[in-house]
Amino acid sequence: MPEQNKNEAEEKQEHGTEEVVEDNHSEEHMDEQSENVQEEQEAEVVHPLEVELKEANDRLARTKADYDNFRRRTKEEREAQLKYKSQTLIEKLLPALDNFERALAVEPQSDEAKQLLQGMEMVYRQIEDALQNEGVTVIPTEGETFDPHLHQAVMQVEEEGYERNQIVAELQKGYQLKDRVIRHSMVKVNS
Amino acid sequence: MPEQNKNEAEEKQEHGTEEVVEDNHSEEHMDEQSENVQEEQEAEVVHPLEVELKEANDRLARTKADYDNFRRRTKEEREAQLKYKSQTLIEKLLPALDNFERALAVEPQSDEAKQLLQGMEMVYRQIEDALQNEGVTVIPTEGETFDPHLHQAVMQVEEEGYERNQIVAELQKGYQLKDRVIRHSMVKVNS
Repeated sequence: MPEQNKNEAEEKQEHGTEEVVEDNHSEEHMDEQSENVQEEQEAEVVHPLEVELKEANDRLARTKADYDNFRRRTKEEREAQLKYKSQTLIEKLLPALDNFERALAVEPQSDEAKQLLQGMEMVYRQIEDALQNEGVTVIPTEGETFDPHLHQAVMQVEEEGYERNQIVAELQKGYQLKDRVIRHSMVKVNS
Repeated sequence: MPEQNKNEAEEKQEHGTEEVVEDNHSEEHMDEQSENVQEEQEAEVVHPLEVELKEANDRLARTKADYDNFRRRTKEEREAQLKYKSQTLIEKLLPALDNFERALAVEPQSDEAKQLLQGMEMVYRQIEDALQNEGVTVIPTEGETFDPHLHQAVMQVEEEGYERNQIVAELQKGYQLKDRVIRHSMVKVNS
């Protein structure tokens, strides 16, 4: 019995050890837990949410890039559109301007006609101002060197006093809208 | 010593028990594990990745909505810009047109002046056509009912044969560019 007691005591002691062992287990458990955490961390690399998150972020990045591109393109288009917005109306007005100039080119005989022409010249200058205000300029011709980007050679002549490719005369006015040629000048060029 | 052996045996037994206990621990551990899984499942609702994913998806949705709005607004702006693109030039041309009309209103005495005026009338009609082509229309006045959206009453008269608010005469032409009034007509209205 005392042995039994001893055994019990031992058992208790064992239990004590067991408790210690249990504590050890707890430590082991801790280790297992931290192992779990490690496993979890490793698992996160291919966690389904991780994949979804990557996809969502990729989509976000692509959408942002598309948006930025669109914004940039839109800005450029709008600037070009604003810059040349008057072009169609100007092009429609040019034939009227040509006729206006032809009408103004007459030599008036009577005072009445002279007065009329003066009034018309004023109107013409007003229209010219409105166009200049919109960025329209007349392409220089006489005396200039022929430039196929600005001029159209409708006649080749051999004229004394002019250099090769120098413009001798203008046959029809050419116009630029800002940096864009909207009608080439028709010119007579020295060959 | 045999006691010690016995003790050892008992110890082994204890160990056995301990093993069982360990098994129990394992079971407990399993329980803890399944508890962990449960916790994980519960935790997934507020899993950091879940939060990040939701944020990313929210950002994506917002960016897409912004992009769509920008695209729609840009389209509307571009359409308006295209629709009224000639407005500034037209507005600049209107004073010249007024003067043009005044110059054409004279009664020519000589044939020379008559011819000159005919040429100028042709030029005027060409300009008018170019403007009409761009969507410019003259606001109707005489005989129309006064409309503050279209007309500006600069004179109130009491004229026989006219109804209340009916326009008696036009003092300056008004113009519309498509559906937009770019200059009100100046009119004399019957009160």
